[in-house]
Amino acid sequence: MTAITTRSDVTVQLVKASATDSDVATAARVSTIGGSHERVVDLERDEGLINFLMRDRHGSPFEHTSLTFYVEAPIFVAREHFRHRAGWSYNEESGRYKQLQPVFYVPAIERPLIQVGRPGAYEFKHGSDAHFARTAANMLTAYEEAYIAYEDMLQAGIAREVARMVLPVGIYTSYYATCNARSLMHFLGLRTKSRWATFPSFPQQEIEMVAAKMEDRFAELMPITHEAYNRNGRVAP
Amino acid sequence: MTAITTRSDVTVQLVKASATDSDVATAARVSTIGGSHERVVDLERDEGLINFLMRDRHGSPFEHTSLTFYVEAPIFVAREHFRHRAGWSYNEESGRYKQLQPVFYVPAIERPLIQVGRPGAYEFKHGSDAHFARTAANMLTAYEEAYIAYEDMLQAGIAREVARMVLPVGIYTSYYATCNARSLMHFLGLRTKSRWATFPSFPQQEIEMVAAKMEDRFAELMPITHEAYNRNGRVAP
Amino acid sequence: MTAITTRSDVTVQLVKASATDSDVATAARVSTIGGSHERVVDLERDEGLINFLMRDRHGSPFEHTSLTFYVEAPIFVAREHFRHRAGWSYNEESGRYKQLQPVFYVPAIERPLIQVGRPGAYEFKHGSDAHFARTAANMLTAYEEAYIAYEDMLQAGIAREVARMVLPVGIYTSYYATCNARSLMHFLGLRTKSRWATFPSFPQQEIEMVAAKMEDRFAELMPITHEAYNRNGRVAP
Amino acid sequence: MTAITTRSDVTVQLVKASATDSDVATAARVSTIGGSHERVVDLERDEGLINFLMRDRHGSPFEHTSLTFYVEAPIFVAREHFRHRAGWSYNEESGRYKQLQPVFYVPAIERPLIQVGRPGAYEFKHGSDAHFARTAANMLTAYEEAYIAYEDMLQAGIAREVARMVLPVGIYTSYYATCNARSLMHFLGLRTKSRWATFPSFPQQEIEMVAAKMEDRFAELMPITHEAYNRNGRVAP
Repeated sequence: MTAITTRSDVTVQLVKASATDSDVATAARVSTIGGSHERVVDLERDEGLINFLMRDRHGSPFEHTSLTFYVEAPIFVAREHFRHRAGWSYNEESGRYKQLQPVFYVPAIERPLIQVGRPGAYEFKHGSDAHFARTAANMLTAYEEAYIAYEDMLQAGIAREVARMVLPVGIYTSYYATCNARSLMHFLGLRTKSRWATFPSFPQQEIEMVAAKMEDRFAELMPITHEAYNRNGRVAP
Repeated sequence: MTAITTRSDVTVQLVKASATDSDVATAARVSTIGGSHERVVDLERDEGLINFLMRDRHGSPFEHTSLTFYVEAPIFVAREHFRHRAGWSYNEESGRYKQLQPVFYVPAIERPLIQVGRPGAYEFKHGSDAHFARTAANMLTAYEEAYIAYEDMLQAGIAREVARMVLPVGIYTSYYATCNARSLMHFLGLRTKSRWATFPSFPQQEIEMVAAKMEDRFAELMPITHEAYNRNGRVAP
Repeated sequence: MTAITTRSDVTVQLVKASATDSDVATAARVSTIGGSHERVVDLERDEGLINFLMRDRHGSPFEHTSLTFYVEAPIFVAREHFRHRAGWSYNEESGRYKQLQPVFYVPAIERPLIQVGRPGAYEFKHGSDAHFARTAANMLTAYEEAYIAYEDMLQAGIAREVARMVLPVGIYTSYYATCNARSLMHFLGLRTKSRWATFPSFPQQEIEMVAAKMEDRFAELMPITHEAYNRNGRVAP
Repeated sequence: MTAITTRSDVTVQLVKASATDSDVATAARVSTIGGSHERVVDLERDEGLINFLMRDRHGSPFEHTSLTFYVEAPIFVAREHFRHRAGWSYNEESGRYKQLQPVFYVPAIERPLIQVGRPGAYEFKHGSDAHFARTAANMLTAYEEAYIAYEDMLQAGIAREVARMVLPVGIYTSYYATCNARSLMHFLGLRTKSRWATFPSFPQQEIEMVAAKMEDRFAELMPITHEAYNRNGRVAP
């Protein structure tokens, strides 16, 4: 039997991007200037314009941008990610077409494990060492048993699409995700917690790990847009 | 420990619909008549118009319809379903907000288990009794072990969103899915096999079970549209 | 030559709807209850749930609804309307397939005609009687001249799709528009002015006339949702 | 009065693109390889894969691309273009924020002017010299009268958003349009005529002029995809 591997992190790589602050300003200026698409890179003027667009929620100029990410994350994270439909495109590793590798998510020691409160107003607290140990033990056992069953079926010639049914949502998958700056900001607004947020969100920590890494790349590529986003309450325009 | 239950079927219920052949014809006629929206229910004239729209791929008139389904299916099926973004809305049972019930999918004896061929051109064949027995045994063991681990973590106070990581994609989930006739036809084109299809598709059998039940309801609600769809190669307009 | 007609209003008729507060609550409850779709019409409990969904911006439950409107409005209004892509479907009277009727928009006497300020911060003021008269006179002349040219070309056998090029954007068109409660709220947020709005918008008055009539129907069909929308700053969830 | 200008063409410029055949192949391979996103530029292998994706209508890999165009075209063309919602983003010159320039469309002498047949099955034929002269004369008169009325209102201080109501749909506008290869192929399928097309379309010639220029850029950027598109009946996957 193949030995299983565990991870407590996610991979997010920026594969390619066509996304600058200037793209936004150029597209927006067609409204008021029209008839010319000279790309005047004038970051000072762009800043005022982008702030105005963000504040008054003119969202469409932010769509003339494109960012493609490669992600490795557990299936339960991909499930939440793929709920974002508008302005997002996905291609994912397929359990029908290939054998999934035995790589599984286990929470890091810092990950709060205990849930307190009621639906819509949960808080999470750190567990004791015993909580962590019990979680890790249960997960390792369940992951191993599942993968043993999976491999046994594959060896017997059972179709991959059938055998995979036993695999847990904690197994890693990989996917490409392409978005634009507007759909990315919408995603970040729902999948991160931030003191700048006008509307608080309560994402599960593991998708927030994906979102945080995407936000880092976004902030590097489009610093003016990113700052305007924070300054205006992290509400996607 | 809670005993697990297995199922080999899916539930698809039509919760509500605002979807008739006449809706399509009425919306389409605004192009050529305009200025009046009298709903003339004249099925004979509608039939010619709907056939024309389907054949020449005028898709938008089919969008003025709405069908809401309630579905119970394994997570691996929901995962495929939720890839359909345009014209589809979803709300799903959440493993963060509630304990998932121990109901799991096991293939029925008729389900072909053996995969032959290469990516893009697979065929499925029936396995022997031994194949079926080995599949069932592996699944039952893996499902039970996973649910034992899940309940053990929940009893220890671990958050549901953490404990669920061990649950397999064969566990049942439930969701509401709302679509229109156009997005439904697109879904059916990719998720069913049919001798009427101009473009053959290769859906996994379990999502085809969902699609087939949706198609039954669709055919009852919109018989003219459904027939035109078949007659025109099951290509969504 | 056909005499032209002028209008200063818009027509918005609710053609059909499958949209109740209970639809929202039922779809939302699948997250926390799952496994049952009994539609418990319990408006008191629904109210709390819908307020929670609106406040925390859980938008998807509002999508399991459908409203179809028939609209008569000038082309410049339809142009703004059709910019709304997500969750909206349209079918419009076609200048390729039929002769457009000589019905044109002229602002009512109450419509502010004078624009003061700079891009992004305009205000509108009422003009004098002379302003109104000059506007009306210019419009009537231009509309008549355009329609004379249009009919002359049609009588000479010129294709409708060519002849229509002279028609002004003030001519009336008609269309069907289908949306769901979420996409409607997004539209209302951008196309109405309201003292309840967290984010102020600056719509042109003529599309606001369309939006206001849609909002009336919406408020009748889904009173709890509508009130929660106002109470939460008219930000579409 | 400002003299008017006429044009018989459209402007389509590729502003920027992140769109190669290799992008498609790389995204597609995650299904079968997963766990690695090395971009192996291997055009021979890409060709087979892209053909397979196109033939079997696996559309999502084509979405990890982005093309931004700047377009100058008459309003009646922009109106048709903006009907394409899925995978398209637009920003357009605004008649509310700026004075529109007096540039108008007049058909070139080669443009068929006479429409023969019935709805759904029109054919266009060349008119006589008299047809052309009558069209040109009517258009010039109507365009001039409209622009005179427009400027007269502007000079009287009437708001631009009001004065523009008299402007004809033959006036030029300008816009940015961003799409991906999949949404572009869908657009091309409906807005071009081609002997390769499985499903014939009947676009108005003026939007076909826009589509043709976009297709040229697309074919240069993604030659393998473009050829596969033609070879598979120009049906967007």
